[in-house]
Amino acid sequence: MKPVYLDNNATTRVDPRVVDAMLPYFTEQFGNASSIHAFGADVGTAIRHARRQLQALLGTEFDHEIVYTGCGTEADNMALLSALETQAGRNEIVTSAVEHPAILALCAWLEKARGVKVHYIGVDSRGRLDMDAYRKALGPRTAIASIMWANNETGNLFDVETLAELAHEAGALFHTDAVQAVGKVPMDLKTSEIDMLSLSGHKFHAPKGIGALYVRRGVRLRPMIRGGHQERGRRAGTENAPSIIGLGVAAELARTHLDEENTRVRALRDRLESGLLQRISHAMVTGDPERRLPNTSNIAFEYIEGEGILLLLNKAGIAASSGSACTSGSLEPSHVLRAMKVPYTAAHGAIRFSLSRENTPEDVEHVLEVMPGIVETLRGMSPFWDGASATRSAFTPSYA
Amino acid sequence: MKPVYLDNNATTRVDPRVVDAMLPYFTEQFGNASSIHAFGADVGTAIRHARRQLQALLGTEFDHEIVYTGCGTEADNMALLSALETQAGRNEIVTSAVEHPAILALCAWLEKARGVKVHYIGVDSRGRLDMDAYRKALGPRTAIASIMWANNETGNLFDVETLAELAHEAGALFHTDAVQAVGKVPMDLKTSEIDMLSLSGHKFHAPKGIGALYVRRGVRLRPMIRGGHQERGRRAGTENAPSIIGLGVAAELARTHLDEENTRVRALRDRLESGLLQRISHAMVTGDPERRLPNTSNIAFEYIEGEGILLLLNKAGIAASSGSACTSGSLEPSHVLRAMKVPYTAAHGAIRFSLSRENTPEDVEHVLEVMPGIVETLRGMSPFWDGASATRSAFTPSYA
Ligand SMILES: Cc1ncc(COP(=O)(O)O)c(C=O)c1O
Ligand SMILES: Cc1ncc(COP(=O)(O)O)c(C=O)c1O
Repeated sequence: MKPVYLDNNATTRVDPRVVDAMLPYFTEQFGNASSIHAFGADVGTAIRHARRQLQALLGTEFDHEIVYTGCGTEADNMALLSALETQAGRNEIVTSAVEHPAILALCAWLEKARGVKVHYIGVDSRGRLDMDAYRKALGPRTAIASIMWANNETGNLFDVETLAELAHEAGALFHTDAVQAVGKVPMDLKTSEIDMLSLSGHKFHAPKGIGALYVRRGVRLRPMIRGGHQERGRRAGTENAPSIIGLGVAAELARTHLDEENTRVRALRDRLESGLLQRISHAMVTGDPERRLPNTSNIAFEYIEGEGILLLLNKAGIAASSGSACTSGSLEPSHVLRAMKVPYTAAHGAIRFSLSRENTPEDVEHVLEVMPGIVETLRGMSPFWDGASATRSAFTPSYA
Repeated sequence: MKPVYLDNNATTRVDPRVVDAMLPYFTEQFGNASSIHAFGADVGTAIRHARRQLQALLGTEFDHEIVYTGCGTEADNMALLSALETQAGRNEIVTSAVEHPAILALCAWLEKARGVKVHYIGVDSRGRLDMDAYRKALGPRTAIASIMWANNETGNLFDVETLAELAHEAGALFHTDAVQAVGKVPMDLKTSEIDMLSLSGHKFHAPKGIGALYVRRGVRLRPMIRGGHQERGRRAGTENAPSIIGLGVAAELARTHLDEENTRVRALRDRLESGLLQRISHAMVTGDPERRLPNTSNIAFEYIEGEGILLLLNKAGIAASSGSACTSGSLEPSHVLRAMKVPYTAAHGAIRFSLSRENTPEDVEHVLEVMPGIVETLRGMSPFWDGASATRSAFTPSYA
């Protein structure tokens, strides 16, 4: 059985067509984009073309609205830092409690080291933003509101258009971390009020190490990395031509596949989700059932540990990830599930399945086959399970 | 005739062995380095191996002394910004007038926006640092001294070891921009006083978009990009595994070829340089004849424009670059040649030839063949030439 990759919100496989497009720029057209000689002659043209491909995906009008960065995190950091520096008298940030660390870790530091006031807007049990609190937090001291377009753990979509309008009413800028949304939801930034938007290539089949910040025309940007004249002086460093070109092709492919994702991938995800809920008791989908990315399903399996599930899934050739902050070494549920007040007994057993256009119906069937047994095995060993379950007898544990 | 690439200080061809090493990490082992499943299982190991390969090239002892970045410029910026933030009461920088814009543009901004005092130490006509001025500039207010290991335009080498000792005597940190030195000169940082060192992959046959900052154990580092736990929390953003792995292989190759570069490449460069000076009058080598990178030759051809030379070289299939700041659109000689007080009539016609291990004796012979004719052509059209030259008749211009 071919291994099944359902961890596309962590990172995606680079599309082989993207790799093919990049290759000549490593060893043939490897010259500096700004040099005039034959080794770099085509590079400038190729970068301009790649920028237009990315523009088409985002629906932006002007090529100088895109600033390439080294990753999504850099774009997020640049947006917030720039907003604070370019708006005298405004020293507050409004964000949500469920942002990615690329926003939250920066905000924590800004509070501590720079005396910036940060409002962390809460969410309800389905992860939906508390709009009243958001409205109240905005004011004449707000430099920027930054709310993600899609949440990486639950897939929840936020109503960034309304949020941007509200920010503007308060005279503040609006930024969205769209790292999980770009390539998965249609966008038309030229008709939008969004001022800045971050993206990261490796979330939609481009390579790691390339991201971008969209900065609407007229919005001032303070550079974070200073040096040469690249990116019109807004982000110095020799242009990463192969990756920029790869990102362009990935954008083009994403745009072409967007409808397909919104139907085929969604159908696969729905089949996976309903199949699991049918087969496994005491399991619940976390997140907003209505406004969600088409590719993401975060399911909490009560009374067991996500890490255990992942290990057994891995043995069965399936890659997914847990909602818990495993990388930090703690077994606390993730800040997202905590903000949603998902009960601990459930949050500990949360698994994120994230699909892409590369997944097949067979992938889903394989998960549906092995997952019930995995949950049973682990529940059989769980000290919390016995007393909690009324339905245990409904299963015939395969390990028994 | 195969095109001749002599612009290796701008950027190098990615070694095909580097590309080969990277490829599996785009489409097979593409998983997140921190994930536990099969798609990322080998990635963590491969990154650790790549780190050791880079350590071997630099001669560093501890793996956590290396922080990967998105480019050399980012590493330069991080070093200076960190030094200012981690040393209360020290608000001055000592640097040189001939640094790369990655240092100078940041310093200019720090002066203007942050009230940092920056001492720009001058150089003599050969580009050698004014050591007296350097000593005098250091003091109890110095946060960091930052002097490049090798100059990108002239190839001049600076005595970073002595400079680091002097900085330490003043209680300051010492950073070196070694973007042009890494892979070209032997290094053994574990026995050195250097606190921080910047490098960039694309200068030694690794891809663009990957760099690193070496930070000696015990030296505090303030992150510039905040978010996830990557690089021990010192540089957030999903690890750029393919590029880190490519950088490792490039470091290994550079280490293996270092002796060869120091002999074969130097011999090629010397043959090119003496051949050109023999064949062309009113030409001079800029820079320090004694302490120079083995691969770089910057020659000023008097009374003509570098841009014209480059165009004709390009026609002849030869890629080089001019010392003038052509990218900024100005025809001013570069800040490096101005700091060396190279006469304008010469500085305008400065051409940098920069070799690598990929160059051959045929490359050099081709330049020696076409260059005299190019200079003659341009001097024939130059309004400054007639009166200036006593030796013109020594040539038989081929275009006549
Ligand atoms: C001496 C020196 N420092 C820094 C840099 C910047 O490196 P990068 O373009 O990778 O940011 C360069 C090359 O452009 C350089 O030659
Ligand atoms: C929502 C969100 N924002 C930001 C990031 C950071 O992107 P990168 O790892 O490219 O820096 C990620 C992914 O890691 C993400 O999911």
